[in-house]
Amino acid sequence: MGCNHTIHKNSHHFGWDNSIEPVLSVTPGQTVEVETIDSSGGQLDKASTVDDLATLSFDHVNPVTGPIHIEGAEPGDAVAVTFLDFRPSGWGWTANIPGFGLLADQFPEPALHIWSYDATSMVPAAFGAGGKVPLKPFVGTIGLAMAEPGLHSVVPPRRVGGNLDIRDNAVGTTLYLPVEVAGGLLSLGDTHAAQGDGEICGTAIESPMTVALKIELLKDARIPFPRFETDGPVTRHLDASGYRATTGIGPDLMQAARDAVSGMIDWITGQTGMSATDAYMLCSVCGDLRISEIVDMPNWTVSFYFPKSVLDA
Amino acid sequence: MGCNHTIHKNSHHFGWDNSIEPVLSVTPGQTVEVETIDSSGGQLDKASTVDDLATLSFDHVNPVTGPIHIEGAEPGDAVAVTFLDFRPSGWGWTANIPGFGLLADQFPEPALHIWSYDATSMVPAAFGAGGKVPLKPFVGTIGLAMAEPGLHSVVPPRRVGGNLDIRDNAVGTTLYLPVEVAGGLLSLGDTHAAQGDGEICGTAIESPMTVALKIELLKDARIPFPRFETDGPVTRHLDASGYRATTGIGPDLMQAARDAVSGMIDWITGQTGMSATDAYMLCSVCGDLRISEIVDMPNWTVSFYFPKSVLDA
Repeated sequence: MGCNHTIHKNSHHFGWDNSIEPVLSVTPGQTVEVETIDSSGGQLDKASTVDDLATLSFDHVNPVTGPIHIEGAEPGDAVAVTFLDFRPSGWGWTANIPGFGLLADQFPEPALHIWSYDATSMVPAAFGAGGKVPLKPFVGTIGLAMAEPGLHSVVPPRRVGGNLDIRDNAVGTTLYLPVEVAGGLLSLGDTHAAQGDGEICGTAIESPMTVALKIELLKDARIPFPRFETDGPVTRHLDASGYRATTGIGPDLMQAARDAVSGMIDWITGQTGMSATDAYMLCSVCGDLRISEIVDMPNWTVSFYFPKSVLDA
Repeated sequence: MGCNHTIHKNSHHFGWDNSIEPVLSVTPGQTVEVETIDSSGGQLDKASTVDDLATLSFDHVNPVTGPIHIEGAEPGDAVAVTFLDFRPSGWGWTANIPGFGLLADQFPEPALHIWSYDATSMVPAAFGAGGKVPLKPFVGTIGLAMAEPGLHSVVPPRRVGGNLDIRDNAVGTTLYLPVEVAGGLLSLGDTHAAQGDGEICGTAIESPMTVALKIELLKDARIPFPRFETDGPVTRHLDASGYRATTGIGPDLMQAARDAVSGMIDWITGQTGMSATDAYMLCSVCGDLRISEIVDMPNWTVSFYFPKSVLDA
């Protein structure tokens, strides 16, 4: 599509630092086409094998393209980003990276799945013999520079956004990010072809894409955390056949989430014969963690919803 | 509908205790029609006011109808309950009860909303001037007796189920509960006309109903926590116009959930002029807490999704 600006993927940086020079300055209302690199920083490709995970350098993961200076943006304002279009690359990867992920203690061995999908039709992507994963491209990492000087890891999301991994930062959604420095300094990357709520194994369908955005500015919005609004339903690509769901119940939400996901891995492996590691990675790209209740003291219910359409004929 | 058995609402008990005598014994495959009392135990009715909350006796809240003995059920099995039909009463209540709820510290004053809805058409129920809440009746509390002897509070859910408050325990869903005592001893109550994931203010649209169930038995299922499966989509009554969503980000899921909900209350009050207490109660009956990511160490993203259809024309 015809955007006001284009940023090529070589204009990227690692980590957040408000002293990084902007690669572009926009006026509010303008559109930008942004090329992204996958979250391995190009270290993995379609021909990669699990052995390549062992040599992955964490100094070069999760590059973000930018930063973009937004004219007139000042601390207290919000930058509004509307996702207009995604041009996916047609390939992606999902990995179990040792030490990373909700069940890292139970899955110490590395694993890698390379995906190939039709970037035009975007039909569900095959996973093993029976899996079909509906695709919904979105931006995993998008944020502004923090007020605090210095270099900050890209891994954790923060008040200004960053590695939010909100799977509904997709076409039609407007995301509002709180500004902490003059110009805001917007960067993005870590695009995903699909992910469930939680991103439970630590990776999604990691897939480089070109993203078209519209950038606007809300003066003096004073929002404490990122917000967003969608222009329609968010789960209809997944929900037609209903769900299987497992629960975890107890006084700690993290443990309840772990129990819910463990239960689903057991259910899937028991019904399909799939390996536990494959079930774990599959859950990460299409299953959703929901908090069913957070008020019935002292025990909370966390549920993990797995869409039946992915494994049922 | 024509069920094999009917249990009247006077056959109820308070709390879980495996020494309570069954009111009915069924063989697997039979159907039962169960009348329930609302979660106030009949202490609130259509004419109640906020003053009635002050005299609410917590010894008589959340009655459950039953228990039902399931022939052949033994520890290690799972009881499968399929929800066949709900006959709602047409009225309900939502309250902010001091000391109870996700933001109890911020909402110390009692509040009560009495709902009236059309139990035949089940069109969205009015809330104040502009609110319209889509209805989806379900069972809030359903569980089996625990192996541990004695009387146990009905408030927290546990491994055997209980006050799960999973809003998809609705028509067409099959719920699997782990058996800990011979006969299982199934009881249920706390029916809701609508609730969002989280039940964030501590109450839903609390509404007495008659529920029709089919009860089956899975021998030696050995499930660690309750599971369920739905026969179709779970959010289409809410999602047609999309969502507004707020986030909380940080190393503690509970605090992140609190921040996400606080953000939504601010958004709603700022846009509509609704009181914060009303926004809190409205969020409880239709907004959803989701864990967007739980792997980007050390910060997690919790999002609260509020369906636009509820407040937008």
